[in-house]
Amino acid sequence: MFEDKNIAKTSLEDLGEFGLIEQIAQGFQPKQNSTIKGIGDDAAVLDYKTEKTVVSSEIFVEGIHFRWDYMPLRHLGYKVAMATVSDIIAMNATPKQLLVNIALSNRFTVEAVDEIYNGIKYACDKLELDLVGGDTSSSVTGLTLSLTAIGSAPEENLVYRTGAQQNDLIVVSGDLGGAFLGLQVLEREAQVTKINPNNKPDFENYTYLIERQLKPEARRDVLQILKELEVKPSSMIDISDGLASELIHLSKHSGFGIQIYEEKIPLDPSVIRTAEEFSINPITCALNGGEDYELLFTIAQQDFEKIKGNPHFSVIGFVGEKGSENYLITKGNQSKVPLVAQGWTANES
Amino acid sequence: MFEDKNIAKTSLEDLGEFGLIEQIAQGFQPKQNSTIKGIGDDAAVLDYKTEKTVVSSEIFVEGIHFRWDYMPLRHLGYKVAMATVSDIIAMNATPKQLLVNIALSNRFTVEAVDEIYNGIKYACDKLELDLVGGDTSSSVTGLTLSLTAIGSAPEENLVYRTGAQQNDLIVVSGDLGGAFLGLQVLEREAQVTKINPNNKPDFENYTYLIERQLKPEARRDVLQILKELEVKPSSMIDISDGLASELIHLSKHSGFGIQIYEEKIPLDPSVIRTAEEFSINPITCALNGGEDYELLFTIAQQDFEKIKGNPHFSVIGFVGEKGSENYLITKGNQSKVPLVAQGWTANES
Repeated sequence: MFEDKNIAKTSLEDLGEFGLIEQIAQGFQPKQNSTIKGIGDDAAVLDYKTEKTVVSSEIFVEGIHFRWDYMPLRHLGYKVAMATVSDIIAMNATPKQLLVNIALSNRFTVEAVDEIYNGIKYACDKLELDLVGGDTSSSVTGLTLSLTAIGSAPEENLVYRTGAQQNDLIVVSGDLGGAFLGLQVLEREAQVTKINPNNKPDFENYTYLIERQLKPEARRDVLQILKELEVKPSSMIDISDGLASELIHLSKHSGFGIQIYEEKIPLDPSVIRTAEEFSINPITCALNGGEDYELLFTIAQQDFEKIKGNPHFSVIGFVGEKGSENYLITKGNQSKVPLVAQGWTANES
Repeated sequence: MFEDKNIAKTSLEDLGEFGLIEQIAQGFQPKQNSTIKGIGDDAAVLDYKTEKTVVSSEIFVEGIHFRWDYMPLRHLGYKVAMATVSDIIAMNATPKQLLVNIALSNRFTVEAVDEIYNGIKYACDKLELDLVGGDTSSSVTGLTLSLTAIGSAPEENLVYRTGAQQNDLIVVSGDLGGAFLGLQVLEREAQVTKINPNNKPDFENYTYLIERQLKPEARRDVLQILKELEVKPSSMIDISDGLASELIHLSKHSGFGIQIYEEKIPLDPSVIRTAEEFSINPITCALNGGEDYELLFTIAQQDFEKIKGNPHFSVIGFVGEKGSENYLITKGNQSKVPLVAQGWTANES
C-alpha cells in the first residue's frame, strides 16, 4: 500500500478550492450507520442514538511534528489520522468519523495532496472511519493538518483519566520507545544524505522502529481484547507524549501516586539494540520519547489473572497512596527516580 | 469588552504546554447540560440524547485569513469562533461546544495567547458555548487556528443545502458587503501607516464596516426568529465566501437554477458610500466579498406573508427551473449576468 509511484504534477490553482474538495470527497464514501450526512453541507450530521458523543482534535505542523526529508506524504496522512483517533480509543469509545482541515502552500501539487488523503483513506478503511468534513486553505508557507475525530460509546463503557484507585495495577499495551528511535534513525540518515546525496540509507536493521515512527497504529484492537477478557480499565490514556508524561496525567487526575518498575517496561529487542547504538538509555526512549500510541491503563488487582501472560499487555507497576510521589524503581530495586513530564516549548519564530 | 490593556510579556517557555492548557481551561467552565466531560481528558464526552450530532471544522491561517497590522488578537479569537459556529447554525442546529487547536511560534507571549482566548471566551459567553477541548502546538512561523464546532438538533429541524424547490423564494438575513469593505478600509490605513508611522487612522465614517470585518456575528438569532414566525427554510447556507458562491452551492445541491435581482440585495448605506469611495460596485462586494456570516436560505412561496416586511430579511430572488442557469438580473431588468463562484487559490510557498 505504501510504495511510491511516478507522480504527475498538477498545480492547486488548476483545480481550485472547490475542485479539490470534490476530488477529495470522491475517494471517501460513508460506511458508518451513524453518518447521516457526510461531506457536502455546512456541517456533518451524525446519529449516535443512545450512545454518548466522544470528540477530540489534534494539530500537526510541518517542521514541528514532521519533516519532508523522511516522512512520505502518504505515511503522514495515515499517521495523523491514527494519532487523532487514538484519543477516542483511549476513552474506550469507538471512533467513527473524521474531519480533516488542511492548510498548504502552492509548492504542493494536487498529486501531493492526493497522497496525504490516500494515507488518511488507508487509515479510514482500516478502522472503518468516515471522513465527514473539514476545511481546505492556502498557507503562506508549509503544511498544517488539523484533525477532529468523533466516536461514540455507551455511557457505562467510558473510561476517564480520573478513575485510578489505590493498589490498581498499571498496564501498557505493546512496547515502547520504538517510534522515538525510528525518528533518530531517519534523522541520522537525512543528515548523512544532506552531506552525501549519493548516500543509500540501509534501514534493514531498523524496519520495526521506522514502521513505529512512520506508520503507527491506534490500538482499537486492545479495546476488543479487553472486552473479550471482561476487563474494564479504571482509567486510561494513550501514550502520545511518552510514558512518563501520561503516567503523571493519570496520577494527577486520580490524585494517587504511581510507581513503576524499570525492568517491567516493555521494550522490543531492536529498541534496546538501537538505543545502545545511539548511546541513549532505552528506558529514556520509553519514558520521554512519545508517538508510540499504545494504551496505558489501570485495572483492579482482581483482574490481574485475566490479563496475566497475555502477550499484548505488560503490568509495569501499581497505584500508590493518595498524594504520594510518582517514581520509577530502577532495576533490582536499586533506587527511586521521580517521573518528570515533558511537553513542547515554543520554537523560534 | 474589546478595549486594549497594558499587556505584560511572559514567554511561552516559562509556562510550558501543560501550564498553558491549564491556564486556558480555567477561563472556561462548562454550562451546557450536554457537556458530560469538557477539557481535561483524551476526548470530550457529549450527550445529545434524542437529538442528532452536528459538527463542522474550519482552519484560519496567518497571512491568509488575517494579518496583525489591523486584526487585534481578541477580535481574532471572537471572529474565528463565530465563523466556525456559523456553519452549525446554517444547519438550523444549536451550536453547543467548541474545540480550539492552536499552533504558534514563540514570538507570541502568554498574554497574547490569553487575548486570543479572551475573544473566544467572549463569543462562547455570548452564544452559551462550552470550550471542551483542543490541542496546542508550537509552529516554525506564524499562527494557525483550527476550530471545530459541535451542536445538535432534532432530526426534523435540520435544514440541508439540498432542499430548495422550484419557485421557492431566496432570502438573506441582514445586509451584505460590509465585512469586505471593512477589510479594504483597514488595509488602506495599514498601508498609510507603513509609509507614515505617525498616521492616526480616522475610522469614524467606517465604524459599521470595521465592526463587520473585526467582530462578525453568527446569526443564531435568525433561527429563533424563523421559529417564532413558523418558517422552516427548505435549504440554508451561511454566507462566508460571498453571496454568489453560496447561491451556486444551493443551486448545485438542489439541481435548480437561481435568479436574483440586483436591486433586492440588501446593502447598508455605508457600504454604498464606501464602495463608491473605492470605485468598486457595491453589488460586487456583496456577491464576492465574503465574511458577512449572514444566512442565505430558501422558503416556500406560501411562507412569504410570514416574513414580508420583516427588517431582518430580504427576499432577493427565486428558484427557477431544474437545471436552469444561475444569474443576477440587473437594475430595471436591464440584463442577466451569470453568477460565478470564487474560492481560494494556493499562495506562493
